[in-house]
Amino acid sequence: MDSFFRVIELLAVATSGMYGVLLARRKGMDFVGVFSVSFIIAFGGGSTRDVILDRHPLFWIAHEEYAYLVFGLAAVMSLVRRPHHLLSKWLHIPDAFGLGLFCILGTSYALSAGTSWFIASLLGVVTGTFGGVIGEVICNEVPSVFTTAPLYATCAFVGSWVYMLAMLLPVSEGGALVAGVAVVVIMRLAAVYWDLRLPNRGEL
Amino acid sequence: MDSFFRVIELLAVATSGMYGVLLARRKGMDFVGVFSVSFIIAFGGGSTRDVILDRHPLFWIAHEEYAYLVFGLAAVMSLVRRPHHLLSKWLHIPDAFGLGLFCILGTSYALSAGTSWFIASLLGVVTGTFGGVIGEVICNEVPSVFTTAPLYATCAFVGSWVYMLAMLLPVSEGGALVAGVAVVVIMRLAAVYWDLRLPNRGEL
Amino acid sequence: MDSFFRVIELLAVATSGMYGVLLARRKGMDFVGVFSVSFIIAFGGGSTRDVILDRHPLFWIAHEEYAYLVFGLAAVMSLVRRPHHLLSKWLHIPDAFGLGLFCILGTSYALSAGTSWFIASLLGVVTGTFGGVIGEVICNEVPSVFTTAPLYATCAFVGSWVYMLAMLLPVSEGGALVAGVAVVVIMRLAAVYWDLRLPNRGEL
Repeated sequence: MDSFFRVIELLAVATSGMYGVLLARRKGMDFVGVFSVSFIIAFGGGSTRDVILDRHPLFWIAHEEYAYLVFGLAAVMSLVRRPHHLLSKWLHIPDAFGLGLFCILGTSYALSAGTSWFIASLLGVVTGTFGGVIGEVICNEVPSVFTTAPLYATCAFVGSWVYMLAMLLPVSEGGALVAGVAVVVIMRLAAVYWDLRLPNRGEL
Repeated sequence: MDSFFRVIELLAVATSGMYGVLLARRKGMDFVGVFSVSFIIAFGGGSTRDVILDRHPLFWIAHEEYAYLVFGLAAVMSLVRRPHHLLSKWLHIPDAFGLGLFCILGTSYALSAGTSWFIASLLGVVTGTFGGVIGEVICNEVPSVFTTAPLYATCAFVGSWVYMLAMLLPVSEGGALVAGVAVVVIMRLAAVYWDLRLPNRGEL
Repeated sequence: MDSFFRVIELLAVATSGMYGVLLARRKGMDFVGVFSVSFIIAFGGGSTRDVILDRHPLFWIAHEEYAYLVFGLAAVMSLVRRPHHLLSKWLHIPDAFGLGLFCILGTSYALSAGTSWFIASLLGVVTGTFGGVIGEVICNEVPSVFTTAPLYATCAFVGSWVYMLAMLLPVSEGGALVAGVAVVVIMRLAAVYWDLRLPNRGEL
C-alpha cells in the first residue's frame, strides 16, 4: 500500500514539475528559473500542507528521490527545443492525475494529523493547487485557479469529500483513494473538454 | 476573558474575510477565488505568526468555526449583486477593528511565546497586516500597506506598544487590551478621515 | 568560531537590508514599506530555511540584534536623499558577500539538521536567494534570480558544493567555510563584471 502511495506521489511530482518547466520557459527564464519554478510547483502545495500540519521533515526532504526527479526533469526539458508543441496538448491528462493524487494524499495526511473533515478537505485542495498558485504568483500572474478557468480546485474539493465518504462504506482505504482520485480526474478532464466554469460576477 | 478574546477574534476574521470577498470580486474571480482570497486575507496574518512562533495547531484549525464563518460569508456574498455599493463606504470601520484586534492578540501571543517587546510588536503588526499583504500579492497588486496609503501598519505598531506599556500600569490585561485596540482603531479611522500618510521620497 | 559566524551573518543581514531599502524606495514606498521590504529581504531566506528545517526560534528572533540593525538601517536610509547614487554602483560587493555567507551558513545548518548533501545545497541556495525572491514578488516583479540576470543562484549552488567537498579534506570547518564563501563571492563578482549568464531558450 505504502509503495503504491509512493509511485503515485512520484507521478504527481513529475507532472507538476513538467508543468513548472513549461510555465518558466514561457516566461523566458534560464535554467535556474526553470528548475526553481518546477520545484516550487511540484513541492509548494505539499510543503504548505506539511508546515500547516507541522509534519517534519517535509515530504520532499523525507523522499529525496522526488527532488532528484524534478532536477533531472528540468535539466532534460531545458535541452528540448519546443516542449510546448510536444506537451501542452496532452498535459491536462497527467496534470489531472497530479491534482487528484496530491489532493487525496493531502486529505489523508490531514485526517491522520487529527483535523476535522472540513479542514482535511481544505488541506487536500491546498496540497493539490498551492504549488501552482505560488508558482504563478512568482511568475507575476494572477493564479489561474482563482479566475474563471475550467473547474480545478472544485474538482479537488469534490474528490476529497468522495474519498472521505467512501471510507464510511465497507471498502478498503485503497479503494476509497482510487475512487477519490478517479472523481477528481474525470471531473477535471470533463471540465477541460466541455469548458465548464463556475459562474462569476466580476464588477468592473 | 478567553471567550471575550474568541468573540473579538471572530469579528476580526469576519471583517478580514469580507474585505477579501470584495477584493476578489473586483478582480473578477469566481467562487473558488472569492473563497480562497477571503480565507488567505482572514487567516494569512495569524498563520504567519503561528508558523513563526511554532504554535500548533494553527489558530483557524484549533478554532474551526472561523473557517466555517469565512466559507459562509464568501458563499452569501457571492450571491449579492454589488457588495461594493453596500459595503465599501463603511468597511473601514470593521476593518479598523479587525486590524486592532488581530494586532493586539498577535502581540499577546508573541509575548506568551517568550519573545522580547520589539519582536512582539513586529509580530503584532504581521498578524494584523500580512493577510492583506499576501492576498494583494496573489491578486498581483503591490501591497497597499507598503505604499502611501493612509497610516495602517503604523497604527498597529503604535497600538501594540500602547498595549505593552499599559500592562506595566496597575490595570487588568483586559484593560490593556482594550486600550491597545482603541488606539489602533482611533488612529486608523483618523488616518482615513484626514488622509494622514507617512512621507515618502520615491525616486523614479 | 561562533562569534565569527555572528559577525558575518550580521554583515549579510546588513547588506540584504540595504538592498531592500533601495528596492522599496525605487518602488515609491513609504517608511513602512521600506522597513518591511528590507526586513523581508534580510530575513526571508533564513526564515524559509528555518521553517523548512523546523529550527525554532527563527534566527532573527534568536538574534534580535539583527532586527534592530535592519530597523536602524531603514530609518537612517529613509533620511538620505538619493541612496541610489551613493550605493547602487558598489552594492554588488556587499551583496555578493551576503549571498555567499547566507548560502554557506544555510548549507551548514541543513547538514546539522541531518539532510543529505543535495538537499543541503538546495537549502543553501534558498537561504541566499529567497529573501530577494519574496521581496521582488511583493514588489510585483518577476524575481531577477530566475530570469537571465548574471549568474546568482548558480554561484551559491557551486559555493555550497565547494564548502561540502572542502570539509572532506583535512581542513578546519572555518577553512571550508571561507573557501565556500570565497567561491561564491568571486564567481558572483566575475559574473557581474563579464556579464556571464546561463543560456535561456525563451519561447514567446
